[in-house]
Amino acid sequence: MKPKLQTSIIIVNFKTYLEATGRKAVELAKQAEKVSKETGASIIVAPQFADIARVAEAVEIPVFAQHIDSIKPGSCTGHVLTDSIKEAGAVGTLINHSEKQLKLVDVDAAIRLAREKKFISCVCANNPSVSAAAAALKPDIVSIEPPELIGTGVAVSKAQPEIVTNTVKLVREVNTMVTILCGAGISHGEDVAIALKLGTQGVLVASAIVKAKDPYGMLREFANATKQ
Amino acid sequence: MKPKLQTSIIIVNFKTYLEATGRKAVELAKQAEKVSKETGASIIVAPQFADIARVAEAVEIPVFAQHIDSIKPGSCTGHVLTDSIKEAGAVGTLINHSEKQLKLVDVDAAIRLAREKKFISCVCANNPSVSAAAAALKPDIVSIEPPELIGTGVAVSKAQPEIVTNTVKLVREVNTMVTILCGAGISHGEDVAIALKLGTQGVLVASAIVKAKDPYGMLREFANATKQ
Amino acid sequence: MKPKLQTSIIIVNFKTYLEATGRKAVELAKQAEKVSKETGASIIVAPQFADIARVAEAVEIPVFAQHIDSIKPGSCTGHVLTDSIKEAGAVGTLINHSEKQLKLVDVDAAIRLAREKKFISCVCANNPSVSAAAAALKPDIVSIEPPELIGTGVAVSKAQPEIVTNTVKLVREVNTMVTILCGAGISHGEDVAIALKLGTQGVLVASAIVKAKDPYGMLREFANATKQ
Amino acid sequence: MKPKLQTSIIIVNFKTYLEATGRKAVELAKQAEKVSKETGASIIVAPQFADIARVAEAVEIPVFAQHIDSIKPGSCTGHVLTDSIKEAGAVGTLINHSEKQLKLVDVDAAIRLAREKKFISCVCANNPSVSAAAAALKPDIVSIEPPELIGTGVAVSKAQPEIVTNTVKLVREVNTMVTILCGAGISHGEDVAIALKLGTQGVLVASAIVKAKDPYGMLREFANATKQ
Repeated sequence: MKPKLQTSIIIVNFKTYLEATGRKAVELAKQAEKVSKETGASIIVAPQFADIARVAEAVEIPVFAQHIDSIKPGSCTGHVLTDSIKEAGAVGTLINHSEKQLKLVDVDAAIRLAREKKFISCVCANNPSVSAAAAALKPDIVSIEPPELIGTGVAVSKAQPEIVTNTVKLVREVNTMVTILCGAGISHGEDVAIALKLGTQGVLVASAIVKAKDPYGMLREFANATKQ
Repeated sequence: MKPKLQTSIIIVNFKTYLEATGRKAVELAKQAEKVSKETGASIIVAPQFADIARVAEAVEIPVFAQHIDSIKPGSCTGHVLTDSIKEAGAVGTLINHSEKQLKLVDVDAAIRLAREKKFISCVCANNPSVSAAAAALKPDIVSIEPPELIGTGVAVSKAQPEIVTNTVKLVREVNTMVTILCGAGISHGEDVAIALKLGTQGVLVASAIVKAKDPYGMLREFANATKQ
Repeated sequence: MKPKLQTSIIIVNFKTYLEATGRKAVELAKQAEKVSKETGASIIVAPQFADIARVAEAVEIPVFAQHIDSIKPGSCTGHVLTDSIKEAGAVGTLINHSEKQLKLVDVDAAIRLAREKKFISCVCANNPSVSAAAAALKPDIVSIEPPELIGTGVAVSKAQPEIVTNTVKLVREVNTMVTILCGAGISHGEDVAIALKLGTQGVLVASAIVKAKDPYGMLREFANATKQ
Repeated sequence: MKPKLQTSIIIVNFKTYLEATGRKAVELAKQAEKVSKETGASIIVAPQFADIARVAEAVEIPVFAQHIDSIKPGSCTGHVLTDSIKEAGAVGTLINHSEKQLKLVDVDAAIRLAREKKFISCVCANNPSVSAAAAALKPDIVSIEPPELIGTGVAVSKAQPEIVTNTVKLVREVNTMVTILCGAGISHGEDVAIALKLGTQGVLVASAIVKAKDPYGMLREFANATKQ
């Protein structure tokens, strides 16, 4: 069930959108699975913690958590134990999303924990130098997302391509293996295609899919762009 | 499904114990349900976020979350949306557990959010004056848990009864309606009985049940103590 | 040097304004002292940590810190030790300002620490119920500041008097001794006068003084309003 | 007043020790200055915020803050504005000390802020990979301090030399310019000498000096070890 990271990938972050909560999370994940099967694109969905079990039961595409806490089992009331979300069916996790930022030491600890639990780690970063710092910690995936563009519909790959190319350059200087994604404002297939041309291996998206009138159609457009 | 708060209650916090994660969370919740049906005791279980859906599907006793974030739907990746855990089947939540402490303003905001969503709020506090402060924010339940006794097997009600009586006194001065629980080290039926005699309406327990050789037997002992 | 809390007081929070940093902090404090001596008004200044020593050396009016950490001496690099700011000349501190919010348990711990060190504690709160919760912890002063009005020039006492009167009502139900201030948007002597009429014992101000063309004149207007 | 970073350096972190607070901070800084003048060693002192002005006035050796907040002037009550501590006389700062850990994005922002303000930045890290991540953000200094050894008297350079050599190796792969220090448990001149042999350019020390019966003698021993 591990996504083939060598091919282009699309991670759909469900965030805490009501359009992607509970039953609607399951429905959206099924749309993503349909697109994945039809196009062969590697699509990952990242629902809320309480929805992971139902989503993972309903679809065969990989399911990520949106966050893990770098804790050991035991006395951590209210925290997210990797064993718990893994048993619920997740195979990886976002770490340090701009809406859930972690201390530097906890980014490191979460990556180590993911590695130990054979969990795919995707660390988010807000700029090229932070992306390089994250890459130095050897996660599976680094995703650059300039916070000022998130949710704007202004695609980072189109509006600020130098952020993406600079990220690819700085990250590759410290880590030749890590998968590099970009996100923020990705709204069209073209934005995805440009992201790949700039040297990334895929995109991290949210509102463009979750809040689309036709999530299936939009995701299909994104998926097609990864196959060209 | 709302627990009758006027009677004595027992909340079992599953924390992040492996003994109460995933399938084992469901099993433990079923034991709790069995005790509740047999004794008539009001028992609430509080599993991890990812386990709420399965647990709530498996049992009819009330299910609490261990924490909620005071957020609105939307862009809060990695946070706990009340709508999400409510749809998963939870009917209430712990707030400000000593292992997940919140800012004062967020304790207030979480209580308001719970009220708005018709969710039962149980605010944890570390000492009598903090319990009174929490009670001033008008949650449904306040639970006093001296952190230094949590997980020790030394029961607050037995070892430091003055903490409990002082809490009851200070809380009642600011709030005559709130349900008062105590926790930390509760390990025997006697500890529960004393807690009730000291003026509380029940207990918040964790390791004594979760890590018991015979959780059913132990919980039954606690439940019986609430019925005397 | 302890301010007479039974009379009306004005606390001037210097925040991190450049207009109230370093040498300018000393100058502003001297203006405040001048107004205090001329009018008999009780004025307190709250400069940044690094400016406390110079300000306290330069003026005789009380100096507050803007925050203390509830820590013990020792291994707390980068934290604010009460002994340190006390030796620098401070006699009290703001706690839980809306720009430096603390966990509920840390608000309690900071108040206790202040009490132990014979330091005046002024806890800030964002709404009436949080003010009551803070008052239950028995600080010397509670200050209600609706964050949405801070820095707007729209005075809480004039625009939303019910917030102030409701705060006074709820706070007095749990604490008859605590001094009650209000702040946010206070810009005219009239705003101060209304605040006092609504049942407070003074105001917490910042930008209206710090960023005034004539801080002395403005503070004098405020001071006069407390004497009517 | 900028320390010559190309030579070996010793940073003395005063933490929140009472032995290095207020007047005692000034005395200790004077001892450090004396050793520096006598031995030619580059010694930096890092007192608490409220002590920076007095210390910087009393000595000519460089003074660091223990932390800065990555904020702009204005509405940041209770935070540490770089302009404020710079005007007080500091020329640099620790960042992300294990006792004041920052979010990854804030480590980056603090380093940028320091650079913009011509402030020397010394980022602390808990292990080799976090040191490399920190180095990727291009601070002036990186200091590796395994938290489990801090304050133990068991020197990292002697007890776990592989942590130091591994740090040097990983850091140099991403940054050839940064000054590398190590700390934790450094208690003897020999520990300092070994640290330098392992490839560092100096040490970050605290309790061994601050709590020494004879801080001057101990510091002199450390200073001599840097000159061999």
